[in-house]
Amino acid sequence: MGISANSEPKIISGDFGYVLEDVPHFTDYIPDLPTYPNPLQDNPSYSVVKQYFVNVDDTVAQKIVVQKDSPRGTHFRRAGPRQKVYFEPDDVHACIVTCGGLCPGLNTVIREIVCGLYYMYGVHRVSGIEGGYRGFYSKNTIPLTPKVVNDIHKRGGTILGTSRGGHDTSKIVDCIQDRGINQVYILGGDGTQKGASMIFEEIRRRGLKVAVAGIPKTIDNDIPVIDKSFGFDTAVEEAQRAINAAHVEAESFENCIGVVKLMGRYSGFIAMYATLASRDVDCCLIPESPFYLEGAGGLFEYIERRLKENGGHMVIVIAEGAGQELLAESMLTVNHQDASGNKLLQDSGLWLSQKIKDHFSKQNKMAINLKYIDPTYMIRAIPSNASDNVYCTLLAHSVIHGAMAGYTGFTVGSVNGRHAYIPFHRVIERQNKICITDRMWARLLSSTNQPSFLDPKDVAETKEETVAQLVNGENHLDVPATVRPKD
Amino acid sequence: MGISANSEPKIISGDFGYVLEDVPHFTDYIPDLPTYPNPLQDNPSYSVVKQYFVNVDDTVAQKIVVQKDSPRGTHFRRAGPRQKVYFEPDDVHACIVTCGGLCPGLNTVIREIVCGLYYMYGVHRVSGIEGGYRGFYSKNTIPLTPKVVNDIHKRGGTILGTSRGGHDTSKIVDCIQDRGINQVYILGGDGTQKGASMIFEEIRRRGLKVAVAGIPKTIDNDIPVIDKSFGFDTAVEEAQRAINAAHVEAESFENCIGVVKLMGRYSGFIAMYATLASRDVDCCLIPESPFYLEGAGGLFEYIERRLKENGGHMVIVIAEGAGQELLAESMLTVNHQDASGNKLLQDSGLWLSQKIKDHFSKQNKMAINLKYIDPTYMIRAIPSNASDNVYCTLLAHSVIHGAMAGYTGFTVGSVNGRHAYIPFHRVIERQNKICITDRMWARLLSSTNQPSFLDPKDVAETKEETVAQLVNGENHLDVPATVRPKD
Amino acid sequence: MGISANSEPKIISGDFGYVLEDVPHFTDYIPDLPTYPNPLQDNPSYSVVKQYFVNVDDTVAQKIVVQKDSPRGTHFRRAGPRQKVYFEPDDVHACIVTCGGLCPGLNTVIREIVCGLYYMYGVHRVSGIEGGYRGFYSKNTIPLTPKVVNDIHKRGGTILGTSRGGHDTSKIVDCIQDRGINQVYILGGDGTQKGASMIFEEIRRRGLKVAVAGIPKTIDNDIPVIDKSFGFDTAVEEAQRAINAAHVEAESFENCIGVVKLMGRYSGFIAMYATLASRDVDCCLIPESPFYLEGAGGLFEYIERRLKENGGHMVIVIAEGAGQELLAESMLTVNHQDASGNKLLQDSGLWLSQKIKDHFSKQNKMAINLKYIDPTYMIRAIPSNASDNVYCTLLAHSVIHGAMAGYTGFTVGSVNGRHAYIPFHRVIERQNKICITDRMWARLLSSTNQPSFLDPKDVAETKEETVAQLVNGENHLDVPATVRPKD
Amino acid sequence: MGISANSEPKIISGDFGYVLEDVPHFTDYIPDLPTYPNPLQDNPSYSVVKQYFVNVDDTVAQKIVVQKDSPRGTHFRRAGPRQKVYFEPDDVHACIVTCGGLCPGLNTVIREIVCGLYYMYGVHRVSGIEGGYRGFYSKNTIPLTPKVVNDIHKRGGTILGTSRGGHDTSKIVDCIQDRGINQVYILGGDGTQKGASMIFEEIRRRGLKVAVAGIPKTIDNDIPVIDKSFGFDTAVEEAQRAINAAHVEAESFENCIGVVKLMGRYSGFIAMYATLASRDVDCCLIPESPFYLEGAGGLFEYIERRLKENGGHMVIVIAEGAGQELLAESMLTVNHQDASGNKLLQDSGLWLSQKIKDHFSKQNKMAINLKYIDPTYMIRAIPSNASDNVYCTLLAHSVIHGAMAGYTGFTVGSVNGRHAYIPFHRVIERQNKICITDRMWARLLSSTNQPSFLDPKDVAETKEETVAQLVNGENHLDVPATVRPKD
Repeated sequence: MGISANSEPKIISGDFGYVLEDVPHFTDYIPDLPTYPNPLQDNPSYSVVKQYFVNVDDTVAQKIVVQKDSPRGTHFRRAGPRQKVYFEPDDVHACIVTCGGLCPGLNTVIREIVCGLYYMYGVHRVSGIEGGYRGFYSKNTIPLTPKVVNDIHKRGGTILGTSRGGHDTSKIVDCIQDRGINQVYILGGDGTQKGASMIFEEIRRRGLKVAVAGIPKTIDNDIPVIDKSFGFDTAVEEAQRAINAAHVEAESFENCIGVVKLMGRYSGFIAMYATLASRDVDCCLIPESPFYLEGAGGLFEYIERRLKENGGHMVIVIAEGAGQELLAESMLTVNHQDASGNKLLQDSGLWLSQKIKDHFSKQNKMAINLKYIDPTYMIRAIPSNASDNVYCTLLAHSVIHGAMAGYTGFTVGSVNGRHAYIPFHRVIERQNKICITDRMWARLLSSTNQPSFLDPKDVAETKEETVAQLVNGENHLDVPATVRPKD
Repeated sequence: MGISANSEPKIISGDFGYVLEDVPHFTDYIPDLPTYPNPLQDNPSYSVVKQYFVNVDDTVAQKIVVQKDSPRGTHFRRAGPRQKVYFEPDDVHACIVTCGGLCPGLNTVIREIVCGLYYMYGVHRVSGIEGGYRGFYSKNTIPLTPKVVNDIHKRGGTILGTSRGGHDTSKIVDCIQDRGINQVYILGGDGTQKGASMIFEEIRRRGLKVAVAGIPKTIDNDIPVIDKSFGFDTAVEEAQRAINAAHVEAESFENCIGVVKLMGRYSGFIAMYATLASRDVDCCLIPESPFYLEGAGGLFEYIERRLKENGGHMVIVIAEGAGQELLAESMLTVNHQDASGNKLLQDSGLWLSQKIKDHFSKQNKMAINLKYIDPTYMIRAIPSNASDNVYCTLLAHSVIHGAMAGYTGFTVGSVNGRHAYIPFHRVIERQNKICITDRMWARLLSSTNQPSFLDPKDVAETKEETVAQLVNGENHLDVPATVRPKD
Repeated sequence: MGISANSEPKIISGDFGYVLEDVPHFTDYIPDLPTYPNPLQDNPSYSVVKQYFVNVDDTVAQKIVVQKDSPRGTHFRRAGPRQKVYFEPDDVHACIVTCGGLCPGLNTVIREIVCGLYYMYGVHRVSGIEGGYRGFYSKNTIPLTPKVVNDIHKRGGTILGTSRGGHDTSKIVDCIQDRGINQVYILGGDGTQKGASMIFEEIRRRGLKVAVAGIPKTIDNDIPVIDKSFGFDTAVEEAQRAINAAHVEAESFENCIGVVKLMGRYSGFIAMYATLASRDVDCCLIPESPFYLEGAGGLFEYIERRLKENGGHMVIVIAEGAGQELLAESMLTVNHQDASGNKLLQDSGLWLSQKIKDHFSKQNKMAINLKYIDPTYMIRAIPSNASDNVYCTLLAHSVIHGAMAGYTGFTVGSVNGRHAYIPFHRVIERQNKICITDRMWARLLSSTNQPSFLDPKDVAETKEETVAQLVNGENHLDVPATVRPKD
Repeated sequence: MGISANSEPKIISGDFGYVLEDVPHFTDYIPDLPTYPNPLQDNPSYSVVKQYFVNVDDTVAQKIVVQKDSPRGTHFRRAGPRQKVYFEPDDVHACIVTCGGLCPGLNTVIREIVCGLYYMYGVHRVSGIEGGYRGFYSKNTIPLTPKVVNDIHKRGGTILGTSRGGHDTSKIVDCIQDRGINQVYILGGDGTQKGASMIFEEIRRRGLKVAVAGIPKTIDNDIPVIDKSFGFDTAVEEAQRAINAAHVEAESFENCIGVVKLMGRYSGFIAMYATLASRDVDCCLIPESPFYLEGAGGLFEYIERRLKENGGHMVIVIAEGAGQELLAESMLTVNHQDASGNKLLQDSGLWLSQKIKDHFSKQNKMAINLKYIDPTYMIRAIPSNASDNVYCTLLAHSVIHGAMAGYTGFTVGSVNGRHAYIPFHRVIERQNKICITDRMWARLLSSTNQPSFLDPKDVAETKEETVAQLVNGENHLDVPATVRPKD
């Protein structure tokens, strides 16, 4: 493969419909690289493990619900240590950067990349980039050692700081080159992974032996292919507090509605799992499921009925991105002279609360109480729970093994419970979303008793999407919160 | 004492400046009432306790920091069981009502009144009034037994429901009379205690043998005389979560300000104690301490300096009622055409957040991030902690002993750690507030390093108030969160 | 298939090495059973979901790490609703029984079986068997309705009560027959699942149309085939508290060792994951990894070295079943005259603590402090966390769908993240154990720095086992705490 | 006052029975000391507070329940800043030492002494003594600055380390003298305060200007005079977890007894308050209340009755020091050949559990289950809660103000909610204990329904003690967990 403008996907096919979507490797664009024996061979903890190294041919199946005669479908390269590595420990200068919003587990991943490089591979030079992508060229780096990161997993947030927004790929790669960095670990959401992909392409174009590896970070769980993103479990757990509070408030006042806004700009996974885990929620609104307020089958009608039937109290969970079309309509009809106040209404939770209050006060039918809770920052900022801590550790180890083995331009993630290397384009091409014609959503509807707010038309459309997805060899399945539905 | 329009305070004086502010008693307005031996005398748990019954002359001193020759000051009647009671257990029909906002511990007090009446006094007839004062005449009562209330202390909220606002004293007393209720236990804040006082006066006017007893409930801790209100400890504890989250967010972004709004419409106790307990707060704004935004010594200047000196992060805690004058001014200058949006700005936390954002974006000096957290409902709705649970139990027992002993028109509370009966007028005449020229507030200023926002003029004025209070025999003192300053 | 003494495994083979290990079905031994349309077809929550019903041919692959040309391996029947069911709702009389020790999530599974049968299938007759298997014939049943179970998932334990130990299969089946029960849901560990298998065989022998379905319950996570058992996540999370306490104690005293005993009689999953999640543990002892105390490479040597190098503190986690051979030896040398004291020493944690104290006091080399923590009951008794709550819900739904569809003699579990029906013999034939020559254990050794305590001989033996397992088409993999290694 | 062998108590009397038990001061034994203006006068946080400095004549009344004509009783000197101090900030070299077992809040007190000295008084030289009293002469000191202690209040334990047991007063004072230390802050229980008293006497004898100040630390709350010890609230709160677990276990098995051992070697405050706060406890055994196992009115009889009446489950809380006489008897009858096993039985919880198991297995009347939980280390090792954090801060400030003002040989504590300086002899002369003929214990008996296990003889004796105490001007009162009964 030559040094083209953009790297092509590496697709390998086999018998019985077997397809491997492979990740780039140094050897794709740099000839005659030397290799070294993996230092783990001399590590006392690992040397007893006979089968420790991953078979170079191991791949992880994405399709797992099969029929006797169905084709084998897409596979990804299995993560794990290889017998040969492409770096000598003393030559490695790794760096870590965290971008985007907070998510429980960021510090654990940072800690484990540092400790894993140090203790497994004898790499002693790791730099932290401060304040997100821009930090590459606007700030000093900070040296990261096992001592520095020893206790950081017990704190929320990221010790490196983070930021959102634009960055200059070329300047970043200049900085990487100038500082002699040769392993770049990037924690961030889909925007960040897109940036990582551009950094990788630029590095490839320049022919540098620099591994670019992403660890997908999204509290919303909206990264495709992988089972779940780290921090998601912790977020669903913490969301229970807010739902409990809304439930208690609602039960203590007459005709009282507790409204809880949860994270999820484009996908409602946190809202859905938090609702399923709680059982105190009467209505869950997510971006994937359109709804309407007025008229037969609308939200107001449901609220009125529910209050009457349910002893005068109910709890509504609304994802950040739910009802955006309705909200956009509302904004159009509003007087724009007072910017500050209206900006607040762009918050879906505040908007919905206001709409409900307005409706019931205008209708004069029912005096209602409404209690609005937005626990977003209280959820994002907590340290990861035990389950996420272990997951973060394994992600960190997997990504290190991949970079040391010469892979680049990849993200790491759990696919059906096994860690795999996934090409960037597969995680950034679209977002993971809840399929509302899937069984998991049916379960939610059944648990809350809320209406589906669906026209037959909507269903037909969604069905077509689903069919399209099935053609791509993927399928919607029932899985625990800890291993989320694929698309 | 005749049946006057309104009952007069019962003041009893003694040597060395001793003053007893006593509470009303049935015998004040009903002659020749029979008494009965206290059933506790036959209770196996109590019969071993020789000194169990309270000496009829016991009083609790309000003034406790004294000089060798200072006068003795105000006292209240000590709470506790008396050897003689004014009810036969079988004749008692008690009722309980909860009013106003939620507060941790409401269910514990309900539980302990029911169980205390049942197990200590053999009273088996207790009715719950649903939905606050209005429930007396608009709803059925619900029978409360030890079995019904057995586990309710593990839940937040109030099983009786609650409501705010108006009620009809006359109709309530009619209902009390019609249903044959003769002990009325009222949980609520200062508005509710005012209502209780009116109910008592009406009952006294009608000459009924009905005990009216209040248990002050205010999460804000703004009831005077008593050490602290139940639920306050739990609230301060739970507020730590929000402050921690704000701190983590602020530390993870550049020039980031975490703003946390805490309860406290007229007094900033929760904000002050939560700040002192946390140590991660850089500025605490309370209703008692006026502040200003612009100019030298103002909040914006402090924020700018703090962000520069403190690594680009800070946490502000603002009590619900802080800055109301500034907020009122803001409202005046705003275009009123969009009601919904502006209403939101009446929330002090949202208002302050907006003001800070506007300032820094207009000045164009500094790009800032701001994260706003409002944990109010998540704090109010949790069950009470162990400390509040015990406090609620003792309050319930004290109020029962008082009612059984024929006292009426009183509230119960801990005064310098001892439970006492306090006349209604003393808890409703004004609110307990933080004295900003007191040492506790100085400690807070010292812990946050925030400016005092005070003019010498302000201090002079406050000083006069303080002097006025000292003349009344009270004093400001340093005390733990669990026993708050007196006024 | 006739009515043989014991049912044979149902094995179905296909191309490319495909094997389906199927579960029994009514039609295996009862001819000409009528079927009915699944009532879910008329359920508003489900009717919008076009692809709701599981394809009858869907199976779940157990082998997921594959090579391009590797055989397809073992599959299990996919769980989920079928278009045809073998019961009319009105004819169903289901019962639920819980056996063995406590585990977070028991009440959630009970709740969801009751609510699932009620709301999804319109089944209104569910009986709870109290106190474990013996309750079938020694106690009254209790009627379970959605109202009764509404809040039970917020409580730990099991509302049905539980017991360990012997039971009389024949009497149980008599009772099932006499009471007209036709769906039996059994929650319990491997002993309980063996009992369930015997009950199934007896029912099959009698030709009864009674579905027998197991939900594997083991806090130790020692059930093979399935990804993880419910409650495991919660247990690992809660174990962090005890490890933290041990760490704080150890750090505050000189030469101080914190010892924490965690659950795990035959497998050390909780100890391993709790250690990996915590990072404050210096040594983790599990049943699968033999160790020795004295001499070079032994535990005492390691403790001494660690205390010296690590600032005088360390934390040891020991699984309940670790070191049983050593403990048995100790018992032999002990004077048996005082039964009470010695029985306590059969607790591995107390035994190890005593051994360490004895060693260091005898050696007179080092004065040590030792703090022993046994959090077992505090872990078992908490309610399940959000992640386990969702998992329990899906398990309950899966098991209901299976029983309604005429499957029997099966357990339900998540296999590679998809719910499947697994024949009893596969979950009871052996226990799931940590493979100490696997990478997960290597990670643990690397994280604690403890010696492997392994002879080359031991490794060789374990390797053979591993090979044997690989031949069976299974493999050891790296997975998050939430999806545990397969055997 | 000359330099006598031991300092005499400083007792000052006044009118109406006023007594002040004062604390020593430098001027008692060093003539002509210069004084300096308090640096707080120039502190911007304090300068606005007009009434900031404590009136030199302020004293805190110990007796607070009074009658109209009762004498005024004992007072202590009020804590707080004085206008004149006896140290120049630059001359101060302070040190802090922590002794005895862990207690939530130790790190908070350390932090606040360091920060208080630094920010309030401009003192920059504070040394930490490591590992308890012995650390004075066996270890290096560690420099303590606000930066070093900034986050330590979020961690349990003590960053200084601690130890129990003997120390050499003379060597400690030598070290103090040699290093030029002139303020010694000592955190510890009654043994430690005795040591502090001896250090003070030796320093006084040598005529050194060194302030010796104690902060009483006892998780058991067994220090007399003061309202409560720091960490107690946190401990009672955390104990709820263990009691909840015991309750869940007991409810899930047949005839099941949950036994929880809580701290309290000589006094049962934690057990009593944890029981009152929980309401799930059926029996609470404390050191102050003797009990017996066998026969009528004994514990076994009560257990049997309770299991029968209460649905087959019960929870027993036993304080560490309860039943020591019975335990001592048991030990005598035991074969002493196996030391290890028997030592374990000296744990009151294990001993009681064994006794109950033996009784019910021998009697063959009832098969019982028993679950024993010892949460001691899990309680001790947690960080202090918000309430204790504030209390610790105020204690630290009070003790600093006292030392700067020239007081020495004193401890600090809250008396009736006001901080006071108390002479050492008053806190070490005896332990604070629960008075079992007091109302608080009656409340507990009433809440658990347990028998009093009391003979009339016992009561008579205790009554005499009580009378003796009343003569001393103290009294037993009803107070919340946060302000404990006085003796």
